[in-house]
Amino acid sequence: MRKAATPLHQRGPMPHSLDVLTLGNAIVDVIARTDEAFLLAQNVHKGAMQLIDEARAEQLFAAMGPATIVSGGSGANTAAGIASLGVRSGFIGKVRDDETGRHFAHDLRAAGVHYDVAFAGDGPATARSFILVTPDGERTMNTYLGACQNLTPDDVDDETVRGSRFVYLEGYLWDPPAAKEAFRKAVRIAHEAGNRVALTLSDPFCVDRYRDEFLGLMRDGSLDILFANIHELQSLYGTSDPETALAALRGEGVLGVVTRSADGAFVVTREETHAVPAHPVEAVVDTTGAGDLFAAGFLAGLSRELDLVDCARLGGLAAAEIITHIGARPQANLRDFARQAGLLDGMT
Amino acid sequence: MRKAATPLHQRGPMPHSLDVLTLGNAIVDVIARTDEAFLLAQNVHKGAMQLIDEARAEQLFAAMGPATIVSGGSGANTAAGIASLGVRSGFIGKVRDDETGRHFAHDLRAAGVHYDVAFAGDGPATARSFILVTPDGERTMNTYLGACQNLTPDDVDDETVRGSRFVYLEGYLWDPPAAKEAFRKAVRIAHEAGNRVALTLSDPFCVDRYRDEFLGLMRDGSLDILFANIHELQSLYGTSDPETALAALRGEGVLGVVTRSADGAFVVTREETHAVPAHPVEAVVDTTGAGDLFAAGFLAGLSRELDLVDCARLGGLAAAEIITHIGARPQANLRDFARQAGLLDGMT
Repeated sequence: MRKAATPLHQRGPMPHSLDVLTLGNAIVDVIARTDEAFLLAQNVHKGAMQLIDEARAEQLFAAMGPATIVSGGSGANTAAGIASLGVRSGFIGKVRDDETGRHFAHDLRAAGVHYDVAFAGDGPATARSFILVTPDGERTMNTYLGACQNLTPDDVDDETVRGSRFVYLEGYLWDPPAAKEAFRKAVRIAHEAGNRVALTLSDPFCVDRYRDEFLGLMRDGSLDILFANIHELQSLYGTSDPETALAALRGEGVLGVVTRSADGAFVVTREETHAVPAHPVEAVVDTTGAGDLFAAGFLAGLSRELDLVDCARLGGLAAAEIITHIGARPQANLRDFARQAGLLDGMT
Repeated sequence: MRKAATPLHQRGPMPHSLDVLTLGNAIVDVIARTDEAFLLAQNVHKGAMQLIDEARAEQLFAAMGPATIVSGGSGANTAAGIASLGVRSGFIGKVRDDETGRHFAHDLRAAGVHYDVAFAGDGPATARSFILVTPDGERTMNTYLGACQNLTPDDVDDETVRGSRFVYLEGYLWDPPAAKEAFRKAVRIAHEAGNRVALTLSDPFCVDRYRDEFLGLMRDGSLDILFANIHELQSLYGTSDPETALAALRGEGVLGVVTRSADGAFVVTREETHAVPAHPVEAVVDTTGAGDLFAAGFLAGLSRELDLVDCARLGGLAAAEIITHIGARPQANLRDFARQAGLLDGMT
């Protein structure tokens, strides 16, 4: 396998400067512990992500408890997880040139993620997600998209996409109108270069908003890999039966990766189905980022050509770390964890 | 004991609307995990607080790892701890009207702390402390004072000080030049109203900078209570012998509260000495705020007229919670912890 340290100019044809490039909303998380009564009083849907405007953001912030501020954003969390596993990752997403945006950019780069999208010099503030964590560890997200609405195809650098073995896209990117075009541009360039494209469905309500478009992407050949949790998958196929949803996914001809929280994950293709148990966790503190980090482990495994079961085990291991603390970025070196679990021995 | 809920106008003479008012630098903490090599490379003194300018702040931020941002500031942490114990607290300290300042103010108010100091409309940004936490849980602080330098006597509201049974002051307040006058004003008003005044020595290097002034405050009757850790106390008296330092403190005629990390605390007066063991902790994650929260528990106990040993036990309990997680503000309801330990039964 090619050493990561090999300088670009010494590489052979079709060099990949990144293993995984993720595209997503660039968001900083504002996290507070709360109780069920507060969720009811604020009329928010537990466990989901709802979009809010600036006025609602201010109102919710004033009402919520003391906040811990950490960088987030689904695709950015995945990129940070991949880097923590010692695998080369990059991120495309838009922030403003404000304190929050500088914090976001710093955290990605400090995590070892390639990030060079230009900051917006005007327009709305950097996106923030007000995340309420209940005592059971469940997170409920209220997202002000702000500067994410200014992501355009110009922010998608052709060379970076061509040089990335995998491109991973958030379903959430369908929310800011202009981002959709950035998303389509990335798919086109990636496939022209022979690279693979993955999408995560992000959230059951997000699937509700864009069901036909997501099914269309899978069926027109835009996607090679689909990540979803079982609720999102059921929403995609409009069924209350998990088995029906899984059977439908098997028929799509993509690699399907379906998480089921503590019940582990399924990896499905037209030919194979693997059930992989979840990684054990002592106490769940905050589930924010569990899906993002599962995808990180899985994609890191794929880029290292692990078999599908080991990819899912690596996903489970990364997800297990993230739910033991507040925030959706790794607080431990995931590569060490993976080595201890015998999953990344011999990785270069 | 007077019920906290009694409206002000129904109270008798000498009403106290707050139990404890703290004055300090209003700081937001930017916390990253690091290793010993990074401390060496950055030439910072492990375990201490060093003051930095804006250029150094930017340089250090760029070099440090992904950051968790939580409100901090020694006196503000103490106020938040007191509120978490169900005791009425307030804070005086200065922020700017920027994102960081709004986060700071929100967190204090959300914690139940009275805070109504006017935001600075211009001048330097809200203070930030770049805190490096090593694997042993020790924290090393690099503080950009920013807007704290604009705290003036005008920010000290006479009525609030008169209405506070205890006023608690940070030694760190000696660093921003104008804050010293705010500090002296608070002492004068508190004593005119018959209230008690406490000072924490804050940091051994801070004591080095202001040794004579701190000794002067204790000896001219400005202080009723002195909080210090044993290193700060030894620095105050210029001795390498802890016993010599404690004996000197006994002679000052103040109530002395001296913490010794895992070795517990001493409470000393001219007549009495009590050694109180530390509260057991499974794993120390981040010692930031240990002293601040010890003071919170002790002052909450004093304001509820607990005996000195129980005050120190309450301090130890509050400190034990804070060192089990990143950040110096309580993540649990300390009042519940105190009740479980039998320390605040019957509190009103």
